[in-house]
Amino acid sequence: VTAKPENTVDFMSSLASAWERSGSMLCVGLDPDPAKLPATLGAPDSPDTILRFCRGIVDATAPFACAFKPQIAYFAAARAEAALEALIDHIHRAHPGIPVVLDSKRGDIGATAERYAIEAFERYGADAVTVNPYMGFDSIEPWLDRSDRGVFLLCRTSNPGGSDLQALEVGDGDRLFERVARLAATRWNRNGQLGLVVGATFPAELARVRALVGDMPLLVPGIGAQGGDIDATVSAGHGRAQPGMLVNSSRAILYAGGADDWAQAAAAAARDTRDALRNAAMRR
Amino acid sequence: VTAKPENTVDFMSSLASAWERSGSMLCVGLDPDPAKLPATLGAPDSPDTILRFCRGIVDATAPFACAFKPQIAYFAAARAEAALEALIDHIHRAHPGIPVVLDSKRGDIGATAERYAIEAFERYGADAVTVNPYMGFDSIEPWLDRSDRGVFLLCRTSNPGGSDLQALEVGDGDRLFERVARLAATRWNRNGQLGLVVGATFPAELARVRALVGDMPLLVPGIGAQGGDIDATVSAGHGRAQPGMLVNSSRAILYAGGADDWAQAAAAAARDTRDALRNAAMRR
Repeated sequence: VTAKPENTVDFMSSLASAWERSGSMLCVGLDPDPAKLPATLGAPDSPDTILRFCRGIVDATAPFACAFKPQIAYFAAARAEAALEALIDHIHRAHPGIPVVLDSKRGDIGATAERYAIEAFERYGADAVTVNPYMGFDSIEPWLDRSDRGVFLLCRTSNPGGSDLQALEVGDGDRLFERVARLAATRWNRNGQLGLVVGATFPAELARVRALVGDMPLLVPGIGAQGGDIDATVSAGHGRAQPGMLVNSSRAILYAGGADDWAQAAAAAARDTRDALRNAAMRR
Repeated sequence: VTAKPENTVDFMSSLASAWERSGSMLCVGLDPDPAKLPATLGAPDSPDTILRFCRGIVDATAPFACAFKPQIAYFAAARAEAALEALIDHIHRAHPGIPVVLDSKRGDIGATAERYAIEAFERYGADAVTVNPYMGFDSIEPWLDRSDRGVFLLCRTSNPGGSDLQALEVGDGDRLFERVARLAATRWNRNGQLGLVVGATFPAELARVRALVGDMPLLVPGIGAQGGDIDATVSAGHGRAQPGMLVNSSRAILYAGGADDWAQAAAAAARDTRDALRNAAMRR
């Protein structure tokens, strides 16, 4: 597999520049759900349709975004791996400086984790990934060899069932997600490239994670369709030196419009979300 | 994506038949590591080489196996998704009745998890999958709609770092992996299709999980290259009514031979492992 074009600076620098240049904390999630794609684009499960839709969304929303986050499941279910490669390639070429977080939530060890790192960083050229920490440090270590890339560990996820395990008390007054945050901020962060995924649906827990991890970047899903409040989210998760948050919105942007105005409607929704995040940051 | 040929009975029945017919608890893991493939087969990172190697391993070891477990990372890193589709198709056609567990350790929620279920069950035609439980029940629920397929939740993994989170005490005397086992055996197992992944490297914990989950099938990695003891593993994990275990070996079988005798050496290693597991079951 030949390496793809990519941002040439390391992920943390590229993210800091993207925050500054865009003035935005908005991360646009690319979840091309065949049930929701504009009918005007063609067969909804065709890789070509998926690529054209995502490319259109990217080009329409890039001025308002600090990052893009393609969700690999939507591509894998449609045999659209080549479309995902082409999409990330397009983002890097047409919108240089906007990092791409590949949302794949992989979690495995040793030689297998190394293969997943090759998938994400070499094959797809992603600037960062999401990783599931359940298997512990040796499932994270293989990703750290690429110290120029970002690794967002699942910490406190935005879904109701996130509490089933993550909210359990694990000793020393920590809940499981707090233990993950502590480990990520200290022992596990050998090369300074870790971030955390913390949902917007639990602002008090987002604030708790922020208190534990200093200025570590937080990828925050759960606003928009999932109902998280923007003011509460920004107040809880904003960093000191920099915004510190990639606040993700997918469905509320991707499917804001109809069959003919989807790109313009996505741009408007992205701009409004950027503004709402920016205003919340000024009010905090 | 068109559905692939697959075992027509449900996974639990197909597994019970496979145990009985094969007299084997061995699950052959298909982890085609390009650094270790026989040089005689061609370029090690070509999808064609990967497919020919895995097909050769499958045909050589099928008489000694109750299941096959392809690890998707090795295929994804080599752009070999089509080879993985062809491999699973080959197993179902050439060795009917041997179930295929797709080891992908996915973990996500809602519409995204549904896409992963389509990837595993429709695109690849897998009879069962591995799933990461960190995100809780709503990350497991979408898999349960396919009640004819098996779902093995990560519980106690065989790697040293597995203890970082899984061994934490979470209240009521449970460690995290025990809580996962309890949830999997009760509230989460709505359609009777769940199993657990429990490593062979911690026999006392394997015995503990077996005590918690009754006859639920356990997928047990960690013998062979990872050093788990076969007698201790079988003694700890064997079920009452049926073997109850898919004891996985990958590297010790795949790479048992050299450039010319890899298939015969794999067959011999698989036969020896089946016999060692069988003898351990008789001695327990």
